[in-house]
Formats: sequence, C-alpha cells, structure tokens
Amino acid sequence: MSIRVGVIGKSGKISKEVKKKAYQVGKEIALKKGILLSGGRDGVMEAVSKGAKEHGGFTVGIMPGLTQEDANDYLDLALTTGLGFDIRSNVLIRSSDVVIMINGGNGTFNEVSSAYLLSKPVIVFEGTGGWADKIKDITQEGKYLDKRKNIELKYEDSAIEVVNLAFKCAPKKSNKFDQGKVI
Amino acid sequence: MSIRVGVIGKSGKISKEVKKKAYQVGKEIALKKGILLSGGRDGVMEAVSKGAKEHGGFTVGIMPGLTQEDANDYLDLALTTGLGFDIRSNVLIRSSDVVIMINGGNGTFNEVSSAYLLSKPVIVFEGTGGWADKIKDITQEGKYLDKRKNIELKYEDSAIEVVNLAFKCAPKKSNKFDQGKVI
Amino acid sequence: MSIRVGVIGKSGKISKEVKKKAYQVGKEIALKKGILLSGGRDGVMEAVSKGAKEHGGFTVGIMPGLTQEDANDYLDLALTTGLGFDIRSNVLIRSSDVVIMINGGNGTFNEVSSAYLLSKPVIVFEGTGGWADKIKDITQEGKYLDKRKNIELKYEDSAIEVVNLAFKCAPKKSNKFDQGKVI
Amino acid sequence: MSIRVGVIGKSGKISKEVKKKAYQVGKEIALKKGILLSGGRDGVMEAVSKGAKEHGGFTVGIMPGLTQEDANDYLDLALTTGLGFDIRSNVLIRSSDVVIMINGGNGTFNEVSSAYLLSKPVIVFEGTGGWADKIKDITQEGKYLDKRKNIELKYEDSAIEVVNLAFKCAPKKSNKFDQGKVI
Repeated sequence: MSIRVGVIGKSGKISKEVKKKAYQVGKEIALKKGILLSGGRDGVMEAVSKGAKEHGGFTVGIMPGLTQEDANDYLDLALTTGLGFDIRSNVLIRSSDVVIMINGGNGTFNEVSSAYLLSKPVIVFEGTGGWADKIKDITQEGKYLDKRKNIELKYEDSAIEVVNLAFKCAPKKSNKFDQGKVI
Repeated sequence: MSIRVGVIGKSGKISKEVKKKAYQVGKEIALKKGILLSGGRDGVMEAVSKGAKEHGGFTVGIMPGLTQEDANDYLDLALTTGLGFDIRSNVLIRSSDVVIMINGGNGTFNEVSSAYLLSKPVIVFEGTGGWADKIKDITQEGKYLDKRKNIELKYEDSAIEVVNLAFKCAPKKSNKFDQGKVI
Repeated sequence: MSIRVGVIGKSGKISKEVKKKAYQVGKEIALKKGILLSGGRDGVMEAVSKGAKEHGGFTVGIMPGLTQEDANDYLDLALTTGLGFDIRSNVLIRSSDVVIMINGGNGTFNEVSSAYLLSKPVIVFEGTGGWADKIKDITQEGKYLDKRKNIELKYEDSAIEVVNLAFKCAPKKSNKFDQGKVI
Repeated sequence: MSIRVGVIGKSGKISKEVKKKAYQVGKEIALKKGILLSGGRDGVMEAVSKGAKEHGGFTVGIMPGLTQEDANDYLDLALTTGLGFDIRSNVLIRSSDVVIMINGGNGTFNEVSSAYLLSKPVIVFEGTGGWADKIKDITQEGKYLDKRKNIELKYEDSAIEVVNLAFKCAPKKSNKFDQGKVI
C-alpha cells in the first residue's frame, strides 16, 4: 500500500505564495506515489490536491458534512463523514502515516496537536506563515508539544525537502504496522 | 468524481460461490470506473476488493481500528478510523453513493438498515445467502424497511446486473449533490 | 455507580397505550435508581423520560445535533454530540449496561442490531407494536440475530417485568467491568 | 435544564495544590447546581469530580474506551463512548455550555482549541500551571486563538471566580438555544 500523507493547513483565502508551495507539496507527494489525504475543502487543501491531481496522484478529502458541496475540484474521492469539522480532522490524522503542516490557523494547530497525541510524525513547512511559523516558539526544545515527548516536530522550508522528510519519517511497514493505542 | 460504491457483506469464512460472486461485483465496479468502498477486512470485503483491484479499480477500506493489521491485501487505501466496527460502518454508508449487499449476518443487516435511514440506494445481491436472501421477507411490500418508505430496496441476482443497477441508482450529480440531512 | 438503562423506541407520534407503557418503564427505572439514557427526542424517548423524571430519576438524552432544540422537556442532561442520528445511537448503546426496546421502526431495529453486535443485553417490551412485536419472528430460535449468538434477546410484556429483567441482566460490576472489545 | 460545565485538565499525577484547586472548582459547580462534565479519568478530572460529588453535584465522565475501567470513583455516570481520547474530547466540548481549563498538557490545549473552533466560552484557571499559565502568551490581544476571534479566552485565579464567570458566560437559554453550526 502507498504512504498516506495527510496535509493540513488553512482553509479559505490564502496568498499566492502559500498556494504555490502547497501545490508543490501535492506534486511531490504524487511523484513519490503517496496518497494525499486532506480536509478536502478550499485554501491549502485545494492547492495541495490540485498539485497532486495534476501529477497523477490520488487525492482524498475527509469532509465534515454529509454532502460533497464544499469539496474542492481536485479530489478523486470525498469521504462525506458527517462528523463535523473537528472530528473529521481526527479521522484524517488517524488515517495518515505522516502529517505535513502548511500555514494554518487554530484549526490547523488543533490538528497538529491531535497528531502529537497519536504520535504521528509531523513535518512543518516553514516559511508558509500562520502557525507553521509560530509553532516552534511554543515547543519544548524546539520540537515537543509537552513533557511526554510523543514525537519530535520536524521542520523544512522547501516543498521537496518537506515531502522527502515526510516519506522518510513515515513508518516503514505501511501496511500492517501498529501505530499504538488510542482507545 | 467517480461513483462511490459501498459493498457490504459477511466477514470471516465465506463459501466459494459467494467469494466468486463478490469478486465479480468488484470486477464490474472497476470496469465501470467506480471507487470501491468496503469495511476492508476479510470475507466478502476481501473478495470484492480483490476483484476490483485485479481489474484496475481503486479500493478503499474503512477500518474499525487505528492500525492496518486486519486490512486485506487488496486495498489501495485503508482509512484507520479507530471508531470501532459499528461506527466505522456508518462512515462507510455515509460516504457511499450507493450500497450493494452480498450475503451477510447481523452486522451487514445493520449496515443496510443504516443505509435506509440515510436514504442511500441499496441493491441486494440475491442468491448469495445470509440476510441478502432473507431481507425481502421482512420488508413492507417487498421493499421498504418501515412505513417511512425512505428508499426501495432493489434486488438482482447476477453480478453484472447488480452493478449496472447500482450505477443507475447512484445520484447523477455525484460531486455536489445534496444527500439530505442527518444532523 | 447506577445501572445505565438505555431505552430505545419510535420517535414522533405514538399511541396513548405505547406512551403509557413507556412512561411506566421510565418510572420503574427511576424507582430502582437506574439512570435513563435515551435518544432524548420525542415519542417513546419523551414518554420514558417523563416517567423517570416524575419519579426522581436522572434522565440523559444522547442528541444527534449540536443544539438542544429537539430535546424533550424531561431531560436532566442533553449531550449534544453532533454525530448524527445513526452514530449517536451507537454512542447510546455503547454507554448502556442494558437496553430496553419499546415499539420502534427501522431506526430502533438498527439500535437493537447494534446492541447485539456489542453483546449488550436487550429486553423487548412485547405488546408495544412495531418491531418490538415482530423481531422474534426474524430471530434464530426466537432469540439470536445471527449464528454468532452474541446475546439472547429476552421478552416481557409488562413495564415492571421488563425493568426487573433489565436490572437482572445488567452486568453485576457496573463500574469497572469489561464489556468486551469493539475496536 | 442545568448548566453543563465541561472541566478539562491534566490526567495522571498532579500537585497537591492543583488537586485542591480542581476540587474547589467541582464544589462550586455543584453548589451552583451545574452538571459537571469531564473526561472521567484521573488527575484534574478526578479531583474536580470528587469536589462536585461531595457537594451534591452530578458528575459525568465522557470516557475514551468502551469500558469503565479507567473511570475515577466520583462519577455518577460514565459514558463509555469507545471513540478514543481525541474524539471523546470533542464530544465533551460539544456537550458543554462552557469550558473551564485547569493546568493541562497538549491534550488539554487541544481541547481548548476545539472549544474555540466551536465558539464555546472558555475560562482559564490561572495559577494552576501547565498550559493554563502559558496560553495567554500565544493568543492575539491576550484572548484570541486566531484571527477569526470566535471567542475571547477569559482568565480568573480563584475557584469561586472561575466558576462564577463560567456561569455568567454560559448561554442563557441553556435548553433550546442554538450553539451555531459545526457541520
């Protein structure tokens, strides 16, 4: 099975530069034969899906609602969970082998924090603004979200390096490995 | 976006004949460019995924646990929801445009019943045993699960006809349509 | 901790007789110091909550939406899960030590089927119509929903006997017992 | 219906001082006839439940697992959601009229962030350590978690004032009001 890469980031309006960087992340994921998971909506989610889709990747959106009305145009599959914004984000994180953070407001920060709880590797795309550029300041030793040191946050500042590192950090045995226990 | 076909049916040991029928359903879904959604485990789920996968289809498993340890070998993507058997089934139904029932015990019956609650079209593959061959007896007028008449259950007895009918019943505007309100 | 009794049954309009029987079930649960869990809406859910509330019981509704707008007037606590009708029902069943079925359409049948999957004891209040009076016909040996024989459905035809049996069937060590594994 | 007060804070070992403060918060909630919702486990959750329970309050735990094995001894009702730590926290927040934060690591921060997403009022108990004492530093204007300014975080440094403010901030029409839309 392919590596499942969850990409999280700001919805709504984003700058041209962030859009371009997100697009490149999608492209690199596709070129490496990863499957892209995102929240399936606009902003970073749309740009990254477009980049993946236009380079032969498979793109999945984990939607908050029961309908596809807020799905962007670059999804191969929209899972219409009906679980709401917050809980669908948890399903997205749970289903990812590795998580990439691009820009982001409080919703994105929430997702990083959930990834940390589940000990999922997180790569922060530095230089994309929002929480992606502030999160290091609130960590312990530049990388831990609390004393438990579940995982180290990692940082890169180009799309290629972000995606390379993501694939390196994803658990090797993508198929049948144990990701630890939540419940 | 492709039609999302949810296939539900018995886990665990199934007869050669049921396995073959499930395999053919998977094959037909793939040939029609549908995306196959299932519970991702063994039994009917494995056979249908194998049939789709070996004919170029894309196969998704909505898993009960947080790991892929019970995923069958024919999935392109396993969503490790960690929601448990019962709730992951609801996410599967919510994310399907149309549902196909093959054989099945109480768990499968539960999924049909959930599909009915959400007004999702259901095609029953007759002649596959289990609840697929008993469900008509408990319906009203051979097709409704209660007085509300949310949807008509439909029945076919060959893989090709089951899948043809499924694609005919799936809502036309697969992308942005409204599937009604659950919440 | 008190015994947690989940009561499931038809929403919407119900007959005077069913209303009275549901009310009596609520009353008996309260007199026995059980906590009443229900879907928190109208119909059977309202009648049973009223019976419990007017006899000093504590009544909880596991609501489908994020608001309390469809909560009946006899709840001490409405949990506004926002998970939708189908998934909130699973949370209700998961949180109950024992389940009582009164009347019911497809939604209620779905809940019994979920209870069976989780091996929760179910008491059917016979003579209340709907699925409560039809379910025996579709069981194996009058009590099992499929071959796995997870639990036996039990039947009584008066409110007192239904609730007595429910308390007898609830796992003894209500606090720290293991209810088996779903995930 | 009573005001539903969600209290969030560190699990596991906590200092005597934090334990005392959490206990007092529980006591004040009980004296004001609020219903206490928490994650139902040890640490802050246990101390606050003990305080409420010993002063006549009703205490509810929204548990991560399907069993009550990790429930503390001061719960009137444990809802065994089986949804896992992260998603059960969302159900807790969704079901609260107002949220009180005491101490806390990354899990608690995650819950505050979820509360903010849902526009639930949050009162931070200052002087209890952990994220409760650091969160102000990362807000905008001392109170917003991002530009959307969904809600203002509020701060108090004694149990009585924290609870008084919580009751003041809880939406007036606790029963049938609209808490906005998540899905």
